[in-house]
Amino acid sequence: MTALPTAKVLEHVDANLDASVERLFDVLRIPSVSTDPAFAAEVQRGAQWMADTLSGLGFEASVRETKGHPMVVAHHAGPGGDAPHILYYGHYDVQPADPLDLWESGPFDPVLVDAERGKRIVARGAVDDKGQVMTWIEAFRAWIAVHGTLPCRITVLLEGEEETGSPSLDAFIKANADELKADACIVCDTGMWDVAQPAITYSLRGLAYLQATIKGPDRDLHSGLFGGTMVNPLNLIGRIVGELHDEKGRIQIPHFYDDVIPVGENERAQWEALGFDEAGFLGEVGLKTAGGEAGVGALERQWGRPTCDVNGILGGYVGDGAKTVIAREAMVKISCRLVPDQDPRAVLNNLKKFITDRLPEEYTASFVELGEAPAIRVPTDSPFLQAAQAGLKDVFERDAYLIGSGGSIPAVGSIKRYLGIESILLGFGLADDRVHSPNEKFELVCFHNGIRSNAAVLARIAELRG
Amino acid sequence: MTALPTAKVLEHVDANLDASVERLFDVLRIPSVSTDPAFAAEVQRGAQWMADTLSGLGFEASVRETKGHPMVVAHHAGPGGDAPHILYYGHYDVQPADPLDLWESGPFDPVLVDAERGKRIVARGAVDDKGQVMTWIEAFRAWIAVHGTLPCRITVLLEGEEETGSPSLDAFIKANADELKADACIVCDTGMWDVAQPAITYSLRGLAYLQATIKGPDRDLHSGLFGGTMVNPLNLIGRIVGELHDEKGRIQIPHFYDDVIPVGENERAQWEALGFDEAGFLGEVGLKTAGGEAGVGALERQWGRPTCDVNGILGGYVGDGAKTVIAREAMVKISCRLVPDQDPRAVLNNLKKFITDRLPEEYTASFVELGEAPAIRVPTDSPFLQAAQAGLKDVFERDAYLIGSGGSIPAVGSIKRYLGIESILLGFGLADDRVHSPNEKFELVCFHNGIRSNAAVLARIAELRG
Repeated sequence: MTALPTAKVLEHVDANLDASVERLFDVLRIPSVSTDPAFAAEVQRGAQWMADTLSGLGFEASVRETKGHPMVVAHHAGPGGDAPHILYYGHYDVQPADPLDLWESGPFDPVLVDAERGKRIVARGAVDDKGQVMTWIEAFRAWIAVHGTLPCRITVLLEGEEETGSPSLDAFIKANADELKADACIVCDTGMWDVAQPAITYSLRGLAYLQATIKGPDRDLHSGLFGGTMVNPLNLIGRIVGELHDEKGRIQIPHFYDDVIPVGENERAQWEALGFDEAGFLGEVGLKTAGGEAGVGALERQWGRPTCDVNGILGGYVGDGAKTVIAREAMVKISCRLVPDQDPRAVLNNLKKFITDRLPEEYTASFVELGEAPAIRVPTDSPFLQAAQAGLKDVFERDAYLIGSGGSIPAVGSIKRYLGIESILLGFGLADDRVHSPNEKFELVCFHNGIRSNAAVLARIAELRG
Repeated sequence: MTALPTAKVLEHVDANLDASVERLFDVLRIPSVSTDPAFAAEVQRGAQWMADTLSGLGFEASVRETKGHPMVVAHHAGPGGDAPHILYYGHYDVQPADPLDLWESGPFDPVLVDAERGKRIVARGAVDDKGQVMTWIEAFRAWIAVHGTLPCRITVLLEGEEETGSPSLDAFIKANADELKADACIVCDTGMWDVAQPAITYSLRGLAYLQATIKGPDRDLHSGLFGGTMVNPLNLIGRIVGELHDEKGRIQIPHFYDDVIPVGENERAQWEALGFDEAGFLGEVGLKTAGGEAGVGALERQWGRPTCDVNGILGGYVGDGAKTVIAREAMVKISCRLVPDQDPRAVLNNLKKFITDRLPEEYTASFVELGEAPAIRVPTDSPFLQAAQAGLKDVFERDAYLIGSGGSIPAVGSIKRYLGIESILLGFGLADDRVHSPNEKFELVCFHNGIRSNAAVLARIAELRG
């Protein structure tokens, strides 16, 4: 049962949901697109909005410049004494809204739309990550409104570069470790199992992301004159991509699997017990055919096995019509999702070698490293994770699932490395939220339950004192 | 030795070269860029210039509208009687001049520049194809100036869409076959072996050009959530491209080689006797490594064997930086150069099947056909080809090489199909003329020898009468 102090907070949350939605709409109206320099002032405005909002709740909040977009750091002393100290990490930047013509409403004009699960909030950033960040901020607001303070000491770290690979984050956490240090971290960029079933994510895949540009001849060539006489860089890049996997979907980069820890029998059994609906998962995006490693279960391929995916490829003439050209160069972006204990640096180096080993002697490959993060496992016996489970049970009246995620949150690795603490991945998104796509949405019921859950989790963590 | 009537014509050509260059400069100043609608009026002006010029020589010339840019058709009765009737085919349109900043003089401001082989004419269209067309027109002019008429009956067909794939040509030739019919055709879009060594091109490769767009999921997906669960369309298109060739460079499209006529021993020996400098050919464009079919000679791979080249590829995120997307679709442009007796239509169909056979059941491929032309072989024992050889020997005092070309000239196929006649490919370009590139040039000595050669070839063909 929910303890009395929490019950009043939850009542306040319920009574003020419309105002919470209005505040979320306010920040959704700021097009804080971090990847496009044209939006730099809007990203700054997004940071300022977050700092002002936290200041308004009594936090000591500041916008902190970096080489890229700013961080927001905010502190609240909480009740004092031996109350636990929690770091909250999220991001206020968003993905670009393109393609604009596929949006049914303006991406930065948030609307409430009726749908099968009740109302939903539609806008870029609705769930990733402004809506999720606002689940804590509105929980903080309710606690302060009802009790005049928070039950724990809180530090907030919000970044504005998550959607561009968090280039400043690692150095910022390292440089400000004393200020950011806490007992545990709560991260809000993950999802529920389904709309009624809460989940805590305890494993994340890592990332090694590489861009390669292959150059051959010193100019574009006529395909009649040169076809069949030389190695076409576009044929070659296709061959390299084709050789990344064997017929069974096994990745062919040398040493790729050397450090992979196989999923254990117990864990596999737990995952299988979740009853993942693979056909439904694929069907939601118009697919029927499974991919990845042959003979491996669906959730295991998503959570427990590494991948190698082409994210972009470009070469030669790509306009309308015919041009009989052999292009001098071709570009490919390749990212690998990693599992424990793969080393992202080793994967990047082995992928570079895989590519250069396939080039004729005078051809060159130039590389741009676009991201690296190790895979993460949070110990499921951590008291903070168990407190989060208890808080979720207070709200949903059922046990949260412990799930994996195929994605990567580089911040979690930096937080562990420099602050020495675990992160609890507590999120309220759904698989069909259209994250990074047109018509991104956050179910109103998820936003609401997210605020309630964060309020309840705070109370449960507060019980860990002393 | 050159017969007397020709000698006087050649003297006239030599004495009036400056005026010939001035006339070529006139037409080079018309930016008849066929692919860009902004230049449509200039293309029309180019057609009118050609018609007026031929009318001025006594031809019955007209500009003939098509659905695209106009054709120019002109007739000269010649000496009458049983004089042979020759069709001349060329084009008055040009490629765009971009990138403009790489030109050392205005692309439509022709200049004479001193260079290692004497003066050269620099302008867009200098050699492709206005300069080459003017080698006949100035030869006609000299014959008419010296003898009051031409030694053969002549029909001229000039198109204004060659640089956009000749979309109107096939239908125009078919519809006007009676008017265009002649004993043989002379085509001027080819080259010499080197500046001192004339050549007649007797084989051209054909073309089958296909654009394919592969679609999988109904939206772009997050590579963390979906990586390893489904078939990434970009991984797939790489695999398809990679499987187009085996390790030895053999094309893997089913039935691709079924109709290929292998190069004969005699022909191979003739080609090898030309002493082609493969290292120099590749070195000119910064390459060392040969490509194409393993164990096949350099000229044979260029002239006598089919190819399959990716001309363009595009999919996913190709801007700066990282985007961890799995794209819903990917596009590739693939062209095959063909040899006798490959059927371009069969190649297109087999290539489509090669692609669709590799798709998961719910994935689709949509196709755009971007060109098809069969390979061409001109019988080397044709009396017209032998007359052309004799004319070249009159001018150069050496035997012309009989060479192949890796390129395609779709007009030659249409002329054979609808007019039932062979084309003699008689051209004066050089490999380093920068065709389609900035600073396109035509060596003045090649222009001069081209006019002399066309004058001499006319006389030799005239000797074929009855």
